[in-house]
Amino acid sequence: MTVDTRTSEAPSLPRRHLLAGSAAALAAAGLGGWSPEAAAAGETPPAAGGAAPKPLPAYAGFKDPASVIVHTSTTIETRRSAFGSSVITPAEKLYIRNNLPAPDASILADREAWALSVAGVKKPRTLTLRELRTLGVETTAMVLQCSGNGRGFFPSKPSGTPWQVGAAGCVIWSGVPVRAVAEALGGVAEGMKFMTGTGGEKLPEGLDPKSIIVERSVPAEAMADALLAWEMNGAPIPLAHGGPLRLIVPGYTGVNNIKYIRQLAFTAQESDAKIMSHGYRIAPPGSKGDPTQPSVQEMSVKSWINAPAPEGGTVRAGRQQVLGVAFGGLHPVAKVEVSVDGGKSWKAARFVGPDLGRYAWRQFALAVDLPAGSHVLASRATDSVGNVQPEQRVENASGYNNTSWADHAVKVVVA
Amino acid sequence: MTVDTRTSEAPSLPRRHLLAGSAAALAAAGLGGWSPEAAAAGETPPAAGGAAPKPLPAYAGFKDPASVIVHTSTTIETRRSAFGSSVITPAEKLYIRNNLPAPDASILADREAWALSVAGVKKPRTLTLRELRTLGVETTAMVLQCSGNGRGFFPSKPSGTPWQVGAAGCVIWSGVPVRAVAEALGGVAEGMKFMTGTGGEKLPEGLDPKSIIVERSVPAEAMADALLAWEMNGAPIPLAHGGPLRLIVPGYTGVNNIKYIRQLAFTAQESDAKIMSHGYRIAPPGSKGDPTQPSVQEMSVKSWINAPAPEGGTVRAGRQQVLGVAFGGLHPVAKVEVSVDGGKSWKAARFVGPDLGRYAWRQFALAVDLPAGSHVLASRATDSVGNVQPEQRVENASGYNNTSWADHAVKVVVA
Repeated sequence: MTVDTRTSEAPSLPRRHLLAGSAAALAAAGLGGWSPEAAAAGETPPAAGGAAPKPLPAYAGFKDPASVIVHTSTTIETRRSAFGSSVITPAEKLYIRNNLPAPDASILADREAWALSVAGVKKPRTLTLRELRTLGVETTAMVLQCSGNGRGFFPSKPSGTPWQVGAAGCVIWSGVPVRAVAEALGGVAEGMKFMTGTGGEKLPEGLDPKSIIVERSVPAEAMADALLAWEMNGAPIPLAHGGPLRLIVPGYTGVNNIKYIRQLAFTAQESDAKIMSHGYRIAPPGSKGDPTQPSVQEMSVKSWINAPAPEGGTVRAGRQQVLGVAFGGLHPVAKVEVSVDGGKSWKAARFVGPDLGRYAWRQFALAVDLPAGSHVLASRATDSVGNVQPEQRVENASGYNNTSWADHAVKVVVA
Repeated sequence: MTVDTRTSEAPSLPRRHLLAGSAAALAAAGLGGWSPEAAAAGETPPAAGGAAPKPLPAYAGFKDPASVIVHTSTTIETRRSAFGSSVITPAEKLYIRNNLPAPDASILADREAWALSVAGVKKPRTLTLRELRTLGVETTAMVLQCSGNGRGFFPSKPSGTPWQVGAAGCVIWSGVPVRAVAEALGGVAEGMKFMTGTGGEKLPEGLDPKSIIVERSVPAEAMADALLAWEMNGAPIPLAHGGPLRLIVPGYTGVNNIKYIRQLAFTAQESDAKIMSHGYRIAPPGSKGDPTQPSVQEMSVKSWINAPAPEGGTVRAGRQQVLGVAFGGLHPVAKVEVSVDGGKSWKAARFVGPDLGRYAWRQFALAVDLPAGSHVLASRATDSVGNVQPEQRVENASGYNNTSWADHAVKVVVA
């Protein structure tokens, strides 16, 4: 079957047929697509027991093998023990979740020539990265987190990558504010309620482009703090993370931060790409995503513990520093409590280190005295408007948005 | 000649003889020692014209070759064009200035077992990194800068590495506060006015240890914000940057941030190691350092421009964003002005990005309209107590502490 990928007027097929076809085509190509179904088809569970770890794919060869779990070539998780005690996540540890394979590395040969078309403004035009640099600059630290982070804690085992805590990181981005670009082009056109980004990945042939393209819409208000970024943690953005140009929408889940962005459009409607209309929806267990269900967009307040012994193991009796990270979504985190008895009692932790801004995570620490025995360590964050990290996850078909403090608790053996 | 390196009771030789001997011994071993003389003996100038760039030494193999200038195996500079527009300097770009060759990488085999002896406290003892972790945690962003950064701008060509701007970076460190360690050991003993750190480098044989050991003292008050750090930019400290454990003294020049620290002592006197008594002194041109001269310790307010075209080259006429970094020493930076006419007129730049704290640098930006022609771009910073970055360097024998805004100006050709 050949589909003309230049238009969205693909032969009309029942949705279910198309989806099944997509999953099969992607699986055959060794790819995990956006949908949990397709992702599951293209994935195998992480190596357990004595199985050898999977090798890093070439485009992610700069990752530190000891710091990551390679689920598939497009899904790589940071080990919980690798977060350490610092505030940022270096590139060599940061997770990868690509909905499509990364473009060829040749797109980085001349970063300055990368072209972005801007639509839905009064004077639409195409701008190169070289031109974007002249319009303004801002640097923003923010938590980048996959919508499915924590999926691995759902007992229902939803399809998709079984991320635990490591599909997240705190990253510093530098680029031009979207608002400066819009201003330079006469401002946003009338009636545009969404900001829609389109990724520059090469689309597999034989599929309706709308069924596979990475194109997401967020409320137009999100442009206030959004960037078109060329730097990550002080270096040009690696291909694996969306270089040469990535849309950064602080406070929104990872999928909205469009890699290799080739079009930024202010639109009256949300994108009708499947990744928007059916993907990333909070669907009741056993059902599939559709446009009537809530979209996974803004992140919610969350925290977890990274030390001591976050992946199990034994620690010494006596004084220990319990360390972790906490963040809100659109609201900054305001408070973290820590429990060493599985949530029966709580003590306020202190924040440590620099505050990188409302969208960044903060480190927290609490000194505790742990006697010999087995202890369940948990953390519970509260954001600036009083939202409290819940004890229980909200069950949903695809395992999105798990902020349960109970799921993120750590069992530590003290000897 | 064999010297017993276990004690400081080496055969007494005239200082001049010892120094000359040191330089010769180090040069023979292919090393640059602490003194400008020794460094000069072991160094060749950076490759110019068509000469091939020097390869990265093995212990610094993780550096990005395109981002650095390899002066020698122990002196590697960040290219001015590599600083980009973000707030931190990633490990693969950060400069290296090691006074002695790095220890064998085997010291990282069991980081937790690294032992630090702590003296000059009421209950002196040796602590492992595993034990230090239990005593507390803090994360601090700070500018790490070699005392000789900017030496390359001195027309007198002082001996030593001709650094321009790239013997500096802004780095996030995580570790235990020194004050928490001192408290755990009963507090600082009476009468101790200095905090003295001793590095764990292997000392070359045949030399008086005091003539070569990396041991520096800072005023004891500096302990207030000092760390014994195990993480840098969110990862265990690489060997090249002092892992497994490094003393971090925010606001003080690089040499005071002792790598591979094996002893931390509160002392009544400054160390009598040559690197303290004679090295890093502000000596009049043509003379040698001695204990009567001011020591290079706290950093001074400074800034420089990193974009556009910081290493020369042509930019397009019209709107450009002038970007750079600015920092104080013990006082945070408060203001930066930018000139596009070589210092005749100045405009206030704005700070961009997160403020990582008083010891970090800040990015600044100013949008300017540049007509065709040649322009001299300069920046001038002021700290929070009113110290202003001077126009002229202070001449001194070893080319230390160059904060001249004129020396750091950039000539840009606009076409």
